[in-house]
Amino acid sequence: MADQKAVVGIDIGGTKTLIGLVDRTGEVLVKQQFPTMITDSPEIHIQKCIETVHICLAKAGLTHHSLLGIGVNVPGLADPEKGILLHAPYAGWKNVPVKELLEREWPGMPINIANDVNACALGELIFGIGKQYNSFLWVTISTGIGGGLIIDRQIYEGEHFIAGEVGHLVVQWEEGNLCGCGNRGCLEAHASGTAIAKAAKEKLAALPKDSPFSTYFIERKKDITAQSVAEAAYKGIEEAKEIYQQAGEYIGRAFSYAINIMNPGAIIMGGGVSLSIDLLEPYIRQTFQTAVISEANKNMPILLTDLGYEAALIGAASLIYADIYIGPIKEMNR
Amino acid sequence: MADQKAVVGIDIGGTKTLIGLVDRTGEVLVKQQFPTMITDSPEIHIQKCIETVHICLAKAGLTHHSLLGIGVNVPGLADPEKGILLHAPYAGWKNVPVKELLEREWPGMPINIANDVNACALGELIFGIGKQYNSFLWVTISTGIGGGLIIDRQIYEGEHFIAGEVGHLVVQWEEGNLCGCGNRGCLEAHASGTAIAKAAKEKLAALPKDSPFSTYFIERKKDITAQSVAEAAYKGIEEAKEIYQQAGEYIGRAFSYAINIMNPGAIIMGGGVSLSIDLLEPYIRQTFQTAVISEANKNMPILLTDLGYEAALIGAASLIYADIYIGPIKEMNR
Repeated sequence: MADQKAVVGIDIGGTKTLIGLVDRTGEVLVKQQFPTMITDSPEIHIQKCIETVHICLAKAGLTHHSLLGIGVNVPGLADPEKGILLHAPYAGWKNVPVKELLEREWPGMPINIANDVNACALGELIFGIGKQYNSFLWVTISTGIGGGLIIDRQIYEGEHFIAGEVGHLVVQWEEGNLCGCGNRGCLEAHASGTAIAKAAKEKLAALPKDSPFSTYFIERKKDITAQSVAEAAYKGIEEAKEIYQQAGEYIGRAFSYAINIMNPGAIIMGGGVSLSIDLLEPYIRQTFQTAVISEANKNMPILLTDLGYEAALIGAASLIYADIYIGPIKEMNR
Repeated sequence: MADQKAVVGIDIGGTKTLIGLVDRTGEVLVKQQFPTMITDSPEIHIQKCIETVHICLAKAGLTHHSLLGIGVNVPGLADPEKGILLHAPYAGWKNVPVKELLEREWPGMPINIANDVNACALGELIFGIGKQYNSFLWVTISTGIGGGLIIDRQIYEGEHFIAGEVGHLVVQWEEGNLCGCGNRGCLEAHASGTAIAKAAKEKLAALPKDSPFSTYFIERKKDITAQSVAEAAYKGIEEAKEIYQQAGEYIGRAFSYAINIMNPGAIIMGGGVSLSIDLLEPYIRQTFQTAVISEANKNMPILLTDLGYEAALIGAASLIYADIYIGPIKEMNR
């Protein structure tokens, strides 16, 4: 394995940081994770990342001479040109010179950083089902909802690095739920994992204790999460199916906007909630078909990522592989 | 003027076809128009265009040797690569080989064709207020509503040439008006000139005959059009102002979708209804500010074209000037 070339992927997530070596085919050779401690300063967190990279290299029997580069996902707003994490709201980190901190350890090493959702989109483009499309919309449906645009086989970030904000498209104008962003009726406030769990809790509070939905959760002593609601839906509990139907309809509304504006080749989904695609997809499609024009748009492929659990890590590594396979990542709009 | 170089712009509109010579600064040197007769076959219509180009050349004292090329706007779906008008629904024309028909008259002449809305966007980019932006959304608000995207100083047409369909974004999910496209609640069905006139007629039917709104139209024996409703609003008639307020709110909804997805540098509007921008703009902005994230997006410039009545003709000519000033028009997504 000593002559093998690899890329380091660093996926700094809200709860854990996953680091691994990813080879040219997108396979994860080794990986190692540790909790993201928001009590750490960002400098200390990056230092922990550096130590973990050394551990991964040792595990793989490689030195940094085998590295093609380092790709870093950050959970927030990034300036990819300068390699700076501008703002990670959950941790309160601001203006962290991620690239510079890593370059101190490995001078001359190619290092690219990006927002995690954009990195996922790029990973999908290079190693996933997105390979077959020139343009697509990537959507992560998880605790929150994020989106990334691939246009002409490039990440498209927009004038202020905030393109693809699918989670904050308003899908309910009349009586929208309050969103974390301060607006009302955002997709994230109606169809994220958090929103699905909240809808289920409200339904439980409103239903009699002996209803099938209530009984399901009480008997199993299950926490109410998007996942447990999905399990109930798969078991045939009507109220649980309705919650996913409603979420699917709202996702369909947001997709209709993106489709009419972008006319992408496909929409590709990832994230925990998207795994329940068969509960969602009929309602997503039914809704956007009433709200887009042209047959081509009505038949837009809605797909699930095939990169699985390591999608974000592969996404991080793809920030370097993009330079090799596609050419330097161009900020299209600058 | 004999050594002056110019581009022929051909703007085939629904009711008239406008042909002119446009110089390198975007100035219209001469122009000539004739009615678009949908009873004509498309071949006969193109023949009339050819004759009119000859008239324009004669008027300007030029020959075709002075021409840098010919740009043609078509009112429908175009395939710019092949130079084919795929479908002009209003005339029933399909698969018209516009470029080939013109090349028979002028072999070797550079000829580009595009959908009229996309051409307007390009005209704005090269000769208008769009010069200062790398990316913007162009929106024509007229009898109908159309949109064109400029990304990275190129027309972005999407996978099937149908990106930028702002007019068919659903802005009213609950009780939407029926749109010409067959869907309900499209922006075009709520805020186009046609929709504004329809709303005014419905309001007139519902109001007593001696209401200020009714009196305004009855006394003046005015036809009810978007323009006459705007005049009433400028005269302070509340009901007329409300119609524009409602239209502005719906335009704001659609713009919020485009802004969250594309994060463009600006939105630039043209078309008859957009001239009433001061009736619309406060409500457009108020609405999209409640529905986009980030300060940059909330402060998105909403601008009116400065190319005036000849915007579409200049747009047609810019299909050729784009090759000269920006480089060959690239279909970004193919």
